[in-house]
Amino acid sequence: MRQSTLFLKTQREAPKDETAVNAKLLLRANFIHKLMAGVYTMLPLGFRVREKAMAIIREEMDKLGAEMLMPALHPRAVWDATGRWDVLSKVMYQFKDHGGRDVGLGPTHEEVVAEIGRFVIGSYQDLPKAVYQIQTKFRDEERPKSGLLRGREFTMKDLYSFHADTASLEEFYERVKNSYLSIFKRAGLTALVTEASGGDFSKYSHEFMVEADAGEDFVLLCRRCGFARNAEIAEEKQGNLCPKCGTGALEGIAAIEVGNIFKLGTRFSEPARLVFKDPTGASHPVIMASYGIGVERLIGTIAEIHHDERGLVWPDAVAPFSAHLLLVEAGDESVRVFADDVYRELTERGVETLYDDRAGVSAGEKFADADLLGIPWRIVASDRTRASGAVEIKRRDAALAALVKISELSAFLKQATAV
Amino acid sequence: MRQSTLFLKTQREAPKDETAVNAKLLLRANFIHKLMAGVYTMLPLGFRVREKAMAIIREEMDKLGAEMLMPALHPRAVWDATGRWDVLSKVMYQFKDHGGRDVGLGPTHEEVVAEIGRFVIGSYQDLPKAVYQIQTKFRDEERPKSGLLRGREFTMKDLYSFHADTASLEEFYERVKNSYLSIFKRAGLTALVTEASGGDFSKYSHEFMVEADAGEDFVLLCRRCGFARNAEIAEEKQGNLCPKCGTGALEGIAAIEVGNIFKLGTRFSEPARLVFKDPTGASHPVIMASYGIGVERLIGTIAEIHHDERGLVWPDAVAPFSAHLLLVEAGDESVRVFADDVYRELTERGVETLYDDRAGVSAGEKFADADLLGIPWRIVASDRTRASGAVEIKRRDAALAALVKISELSAFLKQATAV
Repeated sequence: MRQSTLFLKTQREAPKDETAVNAKLLLRANFIHKLMAGVYTMLPLGFRVREKAMAIIREEMDKLGAEMLMPALHPRAVWDATGRWDVLSKVMYQFKDHGGRDVGLGPTHEEVVAEIGRFVIGSYQDLPKAVYQIQTKFRDEERPKSGLLRGREFTMKDLYSFHADTASLEEFYERVKNSYLSIFKRAGLTALVTEASGGDFSKYSHEFMVEADAGEDFVLLCRRCGFARNAEIAEEKQGNLCPKCGTGALEGIAAIEVGNIFKLGTRFSEPARLVFKDPTGASHPVIMASYGIGVERLIGTIAEIHHDERGLVWPDAVAPFSAHLLLVEAGDESVRVFADDVYRELTERGVETLYDDRAGVSAGEKFADADLLGIPWRIVASDRTRASGAVEIKRRDAALAALVKISELSAFLKQATAV
Repeated sequence: MRQSTLFLKTQREAPKDETAVNAKLLLRANFIHKLMAGVYTMLPLGFRVREKAMAIIREEMDKLGAEMLMPALHPRAVWDATGRWDVLSKVMYQFKDHGGRDVGLGPTHEEVVAEIGRFVIGSYQDLPKAVYQIQTKFRDEERPKSGLLRGREFTMKDLYSFHADTASLEEFYERVKNSYLSIFKRAGLTALVTEASGGDFSKYSHEFMVEADAGEDFVLLCRRCGFARNAEIAEEKQGNLCPKCGTGALEGIAAIEVGNIFKLGTRFSEPARLVFKDPTGASHPVIMASYGIGVERLIGTIAEIHHDERGLVWPDAVAPFSAHLLLVEAGDESVRVFADDVYRELTERGVETLYDDRAGVSAGEKFADADLLGIPWRIVASDRTRASGAVEIKRRDAALAALVKISELSAFLKQATAV
């Protein structure tokens, strides 16, 4: 994509009220725009990162269930059935429509999916089932100040599973756990499976925590065996012996919760009258579980982890483009023709390329912008490189730099990325 | 995908309060679920149709601009700047957040995109620009009763363009017009380019109308030359001579508006102070246009047009699957093994297949469900077809039926679809 046509202009400064590293970087690099506290636009580059993250999530989720899309606007009745209209009134946007009916914006979808389940599940032969969505959620956070880590409007992947018995639930729950670890790894993050509050139906739920200064959670971690427990529910304290391996010492770390999985039991199926008939014809409430990943929070976490003093440093799998081609003009037009050729070559070879073809912008400014944007490969086409029929190629996250002939460019990138 | 695992169960009847054909069919076929009036879930099959429709839209839009994603939650201030907080108060969900601030859910995004434009556009060198999104909109419709044709929550593709002069605007506007015609044609619809009210900045805007009994619009159409004008703004009446060709007689038809394109001039850039500097350094407000397509309305229109007394009849380009494989069991397990082989063959050959592998469901029920779901190719694997190492293949929208050897199946489908 030609940068001259893109809806993009890097900003010298982030808004003064932003303190989070992810927000400052993403705003300056013009990946996002802030409309109000906790409410952001994903500008074209941010949108591409979001698409990459969602593609990873989808690929893993499609192995577990089919995708669907539930609405954000909910009638009060579904929420009253579980009592959560009142319980969640502090975070849920609740208001009256023009007909005077109480409606709200969904901060989560257990109630709604259980309601839908009644139309799809009737017998033990219909179970197990799983279904997921990637959908916009709303939560009226009091003082959102963590950029993409905590928004008032955000995209969530939520998966729901339905079971006839706990053995089926346990088996599926473990599959999702592994699926989540795979998602975070592919997105360039190391996530700790952390024990957290289990609610009414199981001792623990599990949170996926990424160690980061910006984290709002506090986790007790044993670096020896990998045991991790959210400090909120831990009886242990920092420095105590690990309750699992008994040899390591627990360390307290700040962490960002990038996902959670939760056994719900019959907490939501009972009020929704979501039941199935067993082979004898007797009715039982369906056993449920829910599994969430916040998409923008995932992106914000990647930005918190992968950056340096010059800007963002995207992992390949979620980078908005693979290559950033910079045209460095010295005066005459001939370099532009050369750079256009390089752009065509890259595009035809399937290398997703952002082409900084802007006229009248200095080399220094283009280099600084490229560092800020953080695309993995920076490719420079200048008078100097053209003399050797080559481009200068550099990796954003490593010292690697090389002069590569155009004909060898895509092979070079393919090999280097595979390594 | 195996139907036994899918979140799907066809319904004998649609809810009694649904009168629209599209809603009744889509609800019975379990493509959608109704949460409240005008608010639907896209269940897995409906979700797939939506993805297909969005893929067509994206392919055309990506030729015009980059995709981004704006939020649904808007602060009052942006809307007060143009006076539309009051003007649109009847259709806009407006409420106070927990901090007492006025916020609303966006029924459209001209104000917000103009606000963002200020960060991206500064000089004539930044123009023209275009950007689009596919995003959830909210409109508090008084009595939504047209199924997917008019929802309180729906997905809209909205494209916005920014120009330095009207020549640039006109050129781009014509490109979008052609792009829209291509989208509707690919989605199986014949759309009429219809003159409609132009607002302050041009004589006409243009609506894309599909002739349909369910249409809420009334259009005067000349079948001779294709001239069409929304009756709302026409001085002519039904039966009058066509003002364009002068020979045809105007006919009044009911039609569904599936898209619209609108020259906005400086209506939104001026209050947003969205200006650009010309080469002399003088400032001018940016000239804008907006272009919309409602995704669910598009799907609802397809359902209104493409169905028969037995159910839905999806055009290939937007069908949830290409093939619907039905296992017809007579008793023993051997047919299932055979059908499993056919399913594997189809999947490996890249034919998107819904496999009705349900046990204990009669052939009659499976045939009726297949008719209702409306997937283009129905493929039956039974004891009878297995005897000749073949499957029975039928087209949902034509009399075509054939017995086809498994080894020739994917070649047959490819050829037949290409024709």
